[in-house]
Amino acid sequence: MCTKKLKFENIKDAKERLSKYIKDTPLEKSVYLSDDRNVFLKLECQQPIKAFKMRGALNKILSLTEKEREKGVAAISSGNHGIAVSYVSKMLGMKPATVIVPENTPDSKIEKMKAYGANVLLMGTCFDEAYAKGIEYIHNNSFTYIDAWDKDVDVYAGQGTTGLEIMSQNPEVDTIILPIGGGGLCTTTALAAKSINPDVKIVGVYSECCPAWGRSVEEKHLYHEYPSGNSICEAMVGGIGELAFSMKELVDISLEVKESMIKKAMAHAILNEKIVAEAAGAAPIAAFMQYGKQIPGKNIALVISGGNANNDVLREVLNS
Amino acid sequence: MCTKKLKFENIKDAKERLSKYIKDTPLEKSVYLSDDRNVFLKLECQQPIKAFKMRGALNKILSLTEKEREKGVAAISSGNHGIAVSYVSKMLGMKPATVIVPENTPDSKIEKMKAYGANVLLMGTCFDEAYAKGIEYIHNNSFTYIDAWDKDVDVYAGQGTTGLEIMSQNPEVDTIILPIGGGGLCTTTALAAKSINPDVKIVGVYSECCPAWGRSVEEKHLYHEYPSGNSICEAMVGGIGELAFSMKELVDISLEVKESMIKKAMAHAILNEKIVAEAAGAAPIAAFMQYGKQIPGKNIALVISGGNANNDVLREVLNS
Repeated sequence: MCTKKLKFENIKDAKERLSKYIKDTPLEKSVYLSDDRNVFLKLECQQPIKAFKMRGALNKILSLTEKEREKGVAAISSGNHGIAVSYVSKMLGMKPATVIVPENTPDSKIEKMKAYGANVLLMGTCFDEAYAKGIEYIHNNSFTYIDAWDKDVDVYAGQGTTGLEIMSQNPEVDTIILPIGGGGLCTTTALAAKSINPDVKIVGVYSECCPAWGRSVEEKHLYHEYPSGNSICEAMVGGIGELAFSMKELVDISLEVKESMIKKAMAHAILNEKIVAEAAGAAPIAAFMQYGKQIPGKNIALVISGGNANNDVLREVLNS
Repeated sequence: MCTKKLKFENIKDAKERLSKYIKDTPLEKSVYLSDDRNVFLKLECQQPIKAFKMRGALNKILSLTEKEREKGVAAISSGNHGIAVSYVSKMLGMKPATVIVPENTPDSKIEKMKAYGANVLLMGTCFDEAYAKGIEYIHNNSFTYIDAWDKDVDVYAGQGTTGLEIMSQNPEVDTIILPIGGGGLCTTTALAAKSINPDVKIVGVYSECCPAWGRSVEEKHLYHEYPSGNSICEAMVGGIGELAFSMKELVDISLEVKESMIKKAMAHAILNEKIVAEAAGAAPIAAFMQYGKQIPGKNIALVISGGNANNDVLREVLNS
């Protein structure tokens, strides 16, 4: 199905490329979640843009030819990927990025893209509509498209550097828990970690309201689009990436978590760990709380994928 | 008055010592606070213990003789310094630290010290009482005392590495705004930054409820103890360190901020910057909001000194 396959070599190359521009995020032991097992938090919420999406966007843009860069880059996103592409374009002194977003995108995220110089264009009432219109617009204007989640090997290789970092920061890690939206972060981290230690177990976590991964895996069918319920996990809404689906066997355990548990996990993050985790970013904590001892491992890393939490949700979780 | 003086050399030595154990915290541009001026946040709230106190404790403990270490280290603290000494002792594989705390210390902070293996002893109903009893206990038990704030050159040198880092991360920085509790962080950062660029302006910020610094500077009198009002800034409560007072000329501007503005700054930190800042840590943001253009500089660094925010305060600031 996929024309290109992701290899561990791609991830190692990406790591070398990224290391000139961004530092490793911390892998910190949680004194609150550890008991007879050690629990570590991989703090992608401490990336400069507060999300792991920085990795894929940066690796992709650094891999472009001069000609592709000169055309200007464009992304379709309602969130962290759009911010990442905007940030990287500014950081590298390129032409401002073009970001196509659905009309319902929160002002706060649009504001951040604009602060990094992006031209933000509102198209369509939901992500699928923005995507259809955006792809045509990007094609017509000959921009270089930066895929957020579907099948771009360079983007995927960037995300996989998360796994490389975890295993180099603590080779004792035997289980990694990650959120699954499109599947890129989880499958690529799995590839990197298992290439270093084949015994590492990978746990993918999705919200009860965004079950595309669960259904795709159960039915062995790639749901490239999937209807999501009314979820607080905007980073998990939608379908699965083609390249992620092709690597689904790398995910040992897939767990569905309740949105109520994700809210508890977000509150835990702020009140105990003193970090801001967005809903998808808190999902691994939620899974750890909901499934406890059913999760294998003695040294468990939870990937807190991002910190761009919705403010209304933040207020709600601290009040409940 | 002080028997020992802090020199820039001490801070450079400390930086070399610390760099084997802790990474530089980020200096990130705030897209929300920047306008025609660039505003950067120095994220000490991203230290492993969520506070700059890590620096002084680590430098001091690394500077001890083998014999001093073997005695076991002890601290008197109701907060971040106690956590720092506990964490460092555990990290270096030493005997567990002893931390003396007042009886009203929040459970959450005691829990964290214990998680890092410390023996926590409750003494006295307030800090001054804990201090008086603690010093006697430490002396009687021949522990090695790790001073939090008063006059220990090695502790001060550790805190000053903050300034060294800022200037190396961005040599364009021309103003640094810091909270002033005991004065160690502010005066040592000033010494480091001005040793690199004498034109850098240092702005020290204290809460209207914790005015020891303001009064000490105005009256040219060291208030070693000072009554504090009912403040949310527990890290600012109390008097000024002897060594800090001796370096008071390095602080160009001293500003008093309202507690209501500190609450606004804490809300800004979470809702916009997506970081948890404790009250004292948010004070530089509060000063920037309250004094605006009266603050000099084109490239302004705000030191967010810590993130161990009180949870009731967090809830309150997000609801108002």
